[in-house]
Amino acid sequence: MAGSPLRAGLTMERILTSEALRTPGQTVRLAGWVHNIRDFGEVKFLILRDRGGLIQTVVDPASGVNIDGVGKEFVVELEGTVVAEARASGGAEVHLKSLQILARAEEPPLEINRPAVLEKTHLDKILDHRPISIRAMPIRAVFKVQAEIIRAFSEFLRAQGFTEFKSSKIVATGTEGGANLFTIEYFERQAYLAQSPQFYKQTMVGSGFERVFEVGPVYRAEKHETSRHINEYTSLDFEMGFIESEQDVIAMQTGLLRHICQELTARCGPELQLLEAKVPEIGAKIPQVTFREAVHLVEKSGHRLPAGDLDPEAERRLCEWSRQEHASEFLYVVGFPLSHRPMYTHFREEDSSVSRSFDLLFRGLEITTGSQRIHDYELLVAKMRERGLDPQKYQGYLSIFKHGMPPHGGLAIGLERLTMQFLGLSNVKEATLFPRDRHRLEP
Amino acid sequence: MAGSPLRAGLTMERILTSEALRTPGQTVRLAGWVHNIRDFGEVKFLILRDRGGLIQTVVDPASGVNIDGVGKEFVVELEGTVVAEARASGGAEVHLKSLQILARAEEPPLEINRPAVLEKTHLDKILDHRPISIRAMPIRAVFKVQAEIIRAFSEFLRAQGFTEFKSSKIVATGTEGGANLFTIEYFERQAYLAQSPQFYKQTMVGSGFERVFEVGPVYRAEKHETSRHINEYTSLDFEMGFIESEQDVIAMQTGLLRHICQELTARCGPELQLLEAKVPEIGAKIPQVTFREAVHLVEKSGHRLPAGDLDPEAERRLCEWSRQEHASEFLYVVGFPLSHRPMYTHFREEDSSVSRSFDLLFRGLEITTGSQRIHDYELLVAKMRERGLDPQKYQGYLSIFKHGMPPHGGLAIGLERLTMQFLGLSNVKEATLFPRDRHRLEP
Repeated sequence: MAGSPLRAGLTMERILTSEALRTPGQTVRLAGWVHNIRDFGEVKFLILRDRGGLIQTVVDPASGVNIDGVGKEFVVELEGTVVAEARASGGAEVHLKSLQILARAEEPPLEINRPAVLEKTHLDKILDHRPISIRAMPIRAVFKVQAEIIRAFSEFLRAQGFTEFKSSKIVATGTEGGANLFTIEYFERQAYLAQSPQFYKQTMVGSGFERVFEVGPVYRAEKHETSRHINEYTSLDFEMGFIESEQDVIAMQTGLLRHICQELTARCGPELQLLEAKVPEIGAKIPQVTFREAVHLVEKSGHRLPAGDLDPEAERRLCEWSRQEHASEFLYVVGFPLSHRPMYTHFREEDSSVSRSFDLLFRGLEITTGSQRIHDYELLVAKMRERGLDPQKYQGYLSIFKHGMPPHGGLAIGLERLTMQFLGLSNVKEATLFPRDRHRLEP
Repeated sequence: MAGSPLRAGLTMERILTSEALRTPGQTVRLAGWVHNIRDFGEVKFLILRDRGGLIQTVVDPASGVNIDGVGKEFVVELEGTVVAEARASGGAEVHLKSLQILARAEEPPLEINRPAVLEKTHLDKILDHRPISIRAMPIRAVFKVQAEIIRAFSEFLRAQGFTEFKSSKIVATGTEGGANLFTIEYFERQAYLAQSPQFYKQTMVGSGFERVFEVGPVYRAEKHETSRHINEYTSLDFEMGFIESEQDVIAMQTGLLRHICQELTARCGPELQLLEAKVPEIGAKIPQVTFREAVHLVEKSGHRLPAGDLDPEAERRLCEWSRQEHASEFLYVVGFPLSHRPMYTHFREEDSSVSRSFDLLFRGLEITTGSQRIHDYELLVAKMRERGLDPQKYQGYLSIFKHGMPPHGGLAIGLERLTMQFLGLSNVKEATLFPRDRHRLEP
């Protein structure tokens, strides 16, 4: 944009508000959105917001700067001198020398600069106006933390010898037998949106990569309407070969979560403070209970379980128990009945009705499911038959096991659920930029 | 797997072949696939393959180890002593003390341990047997390099203040007006697979993140059957606010590509060597030609252009020119006619028929398309109308521009195409783990 006000006649580089706060005495060029304007008659204050944060600027009539007609959320660039000022947030303010409008703005449909008001706004309205609601500092902070979770997840696994891969999200058949699939018109055929990269990550282990991870979307055509379900979410998947049991997968995840927690604490201080969130500490081990023990604990606490499975209330009670008994906000439930788990789940040698699977509960919610998988071809075929699945329909998947598959296991973490629990949000959609549910396809 | 041979009675930790090669004199435990067996009567050699590479192991009858019945691609674990041996690849070999089978294997359908044979195998057969073909070292190397491209891309952009985000791949309308979309049955409605995160990345810039990137799948329901098209690919997208012109986007990409090249050279030495690939060096600037100059250059070289657009042969000739005239394997073509580009593309103030868009060509192929975008609401509405698009249908997208949008631009790089060009592959499907084309939905 030759002739744009952005650089016209200016030699100074734009810096961020966060950088400006550190350079009292300097003349700076800033750009961003008008977060707020406070008019005290003679003197006006314009609060500027950019990706670095907020800064207070002072409009003194003697400077010749005129901000009449400038409104909230206008995009502006300005020049001024940074002056130390103990009463200003951040300890400094900018005395304006010039200001130019880069883009005008209508009055925003949400009070994005008033967190207390926004907190009382209905979630549907916040999601309807997603592009605007993200501008609110506490909402922006959620997705800054989420980006850091993805980074720390990938960094830890790479250091442990894992390779990132990308699998197709268009598949010919479902992973678990065909329920809850979204159908796609794929040229002359029908195809489906992938529910999980399960088969692909096992393929990659068997292909010689041994340790792989993927960060990608997964799809569930479930008609749920709860605070913890969405129809499209980001799955943090890993799978590893040459394990002894599911305990190797658990140990890897324990190290992974410890790393994520450390990185969030180190890098997301302002965001965590804004959201009044506390990242947990993870000791040497995360406590474990077996499914049977879990059922016993929950029933002893006075909650009757539906059909012997763990429901959301049970998950809450188990986490409360873990917090009190083990001072841990995380809890593994291991040894689920094999019949509750997918056909590829491995089982204990001493009792083949007990699976080598686990869930990880965190602050009252399941955030991870994982297991050791069956790696023996004949055994896998037998397990398919027991479930009434036709091995013929799984020829592609089964071929992996015909050609030499090591013992292996892995898990999947729901990114949005993990974000929600770290930050104490009450609905998983608050931790999803552009959520999809039965009624929501936009924005 | 209690009682598994993997650790039964063993106290030694498994190490990788690449680590074993560095510790002559030590007793080691290894695990992996049987890459090959060479039988010299008295003495046999078993080549073991793991994620670290290959190692030669020696089976001496005096050791009591018996490998009768062990075949290629069996998964085994073994113990032995590392002995320096100049004639062995890597300078050392392992004298076996014990070997146990973890999983048996059928004879593989491809000669994965003979790259020369594999090179002559039809690509369709290689893709049909994807889980097996990835085991071949040169094919595995492709995806190791690809993983490194993703890592280096993300690392560079984070260091430049970009935030990673994840957008929905299920959308209510297409980005460019509705052609080439895959349809999804979304509960009671119809939806589409996203062709690009274009609107979402612009949304994120306007939401205050200013600089964002996404690594995710995109979908094109095109009936192409060429060596450079697939129907699902991974798009490396970035978008940045507060730019002066498209040249700021180009400058960012130049730094980005330089970083990727440096990281590939530093970290993927063995893979590049195996694939006989040379990563280019990028100087201070990548040369640029305008679309008009490009047309002139191509026509002067004796190639007649179809309807004034650049075809694949033109891209090859332009890259040849860039190599000869500028010693550069990259070339930007800038200033495409505005009518060739999407409605959101910005244009030059001095000639509104010329867009502020660009393509990046690399070794004869377009790998990137980018531009400065229109940020003014009224202008964008006018441009939609000029194209015969109904602004009413873009209410959600347009709302971003009503509330204060800074000047901005960005680009998208096709991950598989970039990988293909770095490695000198002849078909983009060779750089795709599980490609989707009109006829291929599996594996």
